[in-house]
Amino acid sequence: MKKYIAILGFGVVGSGCADVLDTNKKLIAERCGFEIEVKYILDLRDFPQSPYADKIVHDYNVILSDPEVELVAEMMGGSHPALEFSLAAMDAKKSVVTSNKEVVATHGLELLSCAKENAVSYMFEASVGGGIPVIHTIDTSLVQNDIKEISGILNGTTNYILTQMNTAGADFESALKEAQAKGYAEADPSADVDGIDACRKIAILASLAFGKLIPTECIHTEGVRTVARKDVEIAAAAGYAIKLIGRTFADNKNICAYVCPMLVKNNDPLSTVNDVFNGIKINGDAVGEVMLYGRGAGKLPTASAVVSDIINILSGSGVSYSWQKAEGSDIIDFDNVVSKQYIRTSSKSALLDGALDIGGAYITGEMSEAEAEELVKKLNASGADVLARIRILG
Amino acid sequence: MKKYIAILGFGVVGSGCADVLDTNKKLIAERCGFEIEVKYILDLRDFPQSPYADKIVHDYNVILSDPEVELVAEMMGGSHPALEFSLAAMDAKKSVVTSNKEVVATHGLELLSCAKENAVSYMFEASVGGGIPVIHTIDTSLVQNDIKEISGILNGTTNYILTQMNTAGADFESALKEAQAKGYAEADPSADVDGIDACRKIAILASLAFGKLIPTECIHTEGVRTVARKDVEIAAAAGYAIKLIGRTFADNKNICAYVCPMLVKNNDPLSTVNDVFNGIKINGDAVGEVMLYGRGAGKLPTASAVVSDIINILSGSGVSYSWQKAEGSDIIDFDNVVSKQYIRTSSKSALLDGALDIGGAYITGEMSEAEAEELVKKLNASGADVLARIRILG
Repeated sequence: MKKYIAILGFGVVGSGCADVLDTNKKLIAERCGFEIEVKYILDLRDFPQSPYADKIVHDYNVILSDPEVELVAEMMGGSHPALEFSLAAMDAKKSVVTSNKEVVATHGLELLSCAKENAVSYMFEASVGGGIPVIHTIDTSLVQNDIKEISGILNGTTNYILTQMNTAGADFESALKEAQAKGYAEADPSADVDGIDACRKIAILASLAFGKLIPTECIHTEGVRTVARKDVEIAAAAGYAIKLIGRTFADNKNICAYVCPMLVKNNDPLSTVNDVFNGIKINGDAVGEVMLYGRGAGKLPTASAVVSDIINILSGSGVSYSWQKAEGSDIIDFDNVVSKQYIRTSSKSALLDGALDIGGAYITGEMSEAEAEELVKKLNASGADVLARIRILG
Repeated sequence: MKKYIAILGFGVVGSGCADVLDTNKKLIAERCGFEIEVKYILDLRDFPQSPYADKIVHDYNVILSDPEVELVAEMMGGSHPALEFSLAAMDAKKSVVTSNKEVVATHGLELLSCAKENAVSYMFEASVGGGIPVIHTIDTSLVQNDIKEISGILNGTTNYILTQMNTAGADFESALKEAQAKGYAEADPSADVDGIDACRKIAILASLAFGKLIPTECIHTEGVRTVARKDVEIAAAAGYAIKLIGRTFADNKNICAYVCPMLVKNNDPLSTVNDVFNGIKINGDAVGEVMLYGRGAGKLPTASAVVSDIINILSGSGVSYSWQKAEGSDIIDFDNVVSKQYIRTSSKSALLDGALDIGGAYITGEMSEAEAEELVKKLNASGADVLARIRILG
């Protein structure tokens, strides 16, 4: 038996998806009991040299009006027209899978309610963690767990930069240039280095864990531009790695999500997630601590995740989540988030007498964000200028 | 709606399973759309103080003859009567889930063919990696991948012992005693320290990845009794951790599985899996390298995995694999397995001139097991006694 799908967007991930389906066609047919055939590929461009040239179409209506196409794999990126195309596919009773974190984090509620109305599936394994099957794991293998917390290294570009700063003594600017030269970072690196990409991903993970989508503007988000090599070095000497962490947790039905650089202790498995790899640590009441590790980006890993959703849906195991919108009262104010603090000042201060001196900087006890901001103000006023404040994970 | 199950064996995992189903009853009902009720618990003992006392039965026929019981969760351990009880349940058209690696590795073919005949499911997520959802991941999220290799730290007891030898300067005997005192190792530690437990687990993983069950007697298995603290120290100084590794790979349809201590380079994420944690690294053609990390044993983590199988089956997503038996010609002879070798000798030898001197020991180039055995013989004959030979992963 053959089942037909269409691909929207023949870029890196879209062509990777076609490649995975082609390379492993026989294996997939054996394991699933049906063949998957890409019937159309929608793109603005033509690809005369591609083996898939004859599948390229420019008119989306060709796909929408073909009843043989059961599923549309959207790998266009960006919110528009990905949103409109996905809604139109579901209104035409076709399931949709996507690798597009922006459209899921921004328009997830609308997309999922459209899926429900049309009794089709909307799935997005590839939107978080590239090839790492984190979404399916939370949704199936950990479904019997009350999830307490998820903390993850969700962005490979910034993790590469921080790894270079840690192991090669690079500063931020030179590590960014190297990441750009290697193709790990875009010419405009803002979505990565300012934490926007990680923010979208933690929003998606929070929704899966707690059933409520937090608007990205309610997620405190800091990037890695302010991380100084000096702090990476002091932290390393004290047994910590600095990582860009996306974290979400629930406290009595209220939820919180934020993204910022954090010190991660060497015995935490996240501390050893280096280079462009991603790691996502999930804490459930029964399972305890589980971490998933792998390539958070790249053509074939991301395509692998897209194809896993395609197979799930075509096998009859597709899902469509019922997320609520997180209202203001559901969201824990970032001012109330508590953590230990790494603080580096221009000079000694009695205000840090209770803190642990780690040689060049201090580690305080637990305090709320509001208290930490107050401490920074007092330190600055006392003449001990705060040169760095970084939160500590765990 | 309520769905009824029975638990066989009310030991650590069995009672953990009842606890997870009870503690998260509401959450499971909300997420799955039905309630799961434990109707019977089969055990030889009575548990008058237990909240589940009224569910205890001693006669298995009560369970077999009750048509309301859809599924039996076998957590008795050992091959018998777990095998007979599981077969009887499936013959009574009840699906079976288990945490019992021995029965799966030894009688998996018979159990799976019984499941197929009766059109029920036989699932065993908890048999490998405790709470880590490795089996479901291979079977669903990575199904579109041609798996090349799986390497894992599959036994928490030996990993605890090796971690103590590495970080606390303990030798094998004292680390084992400490593991026993902490309840991580049994009074008779053989199944763990001689690699038998890891052997069963790699047999199960190989079957999932390659569709063929390798008889455990065809899996080269070494434990950790011979690992000397001196080698742990030399390896650590050279940037390696010594870990008990279960490894399986395929080469042109032929497959291989073995268990032995190996040197794992510090930049391999497996090297940082410490204490009683497990880590399983899967290499697929599309996804690249993925690692799953978590608690490989323990009451609630293992129960979490059992319950995930229960939910899968009761939700209609149960599976039953079609494994073949690996015949002699399918199995790569261990003599032909190639790796670099860590070799420590009583004195210098010209036979190791091409090897890398890491201070106190040598690292050779790649060679087959047969070649390595030959080298050992020659070294011993030359008067440079081989005090340790340990394979290197990767």
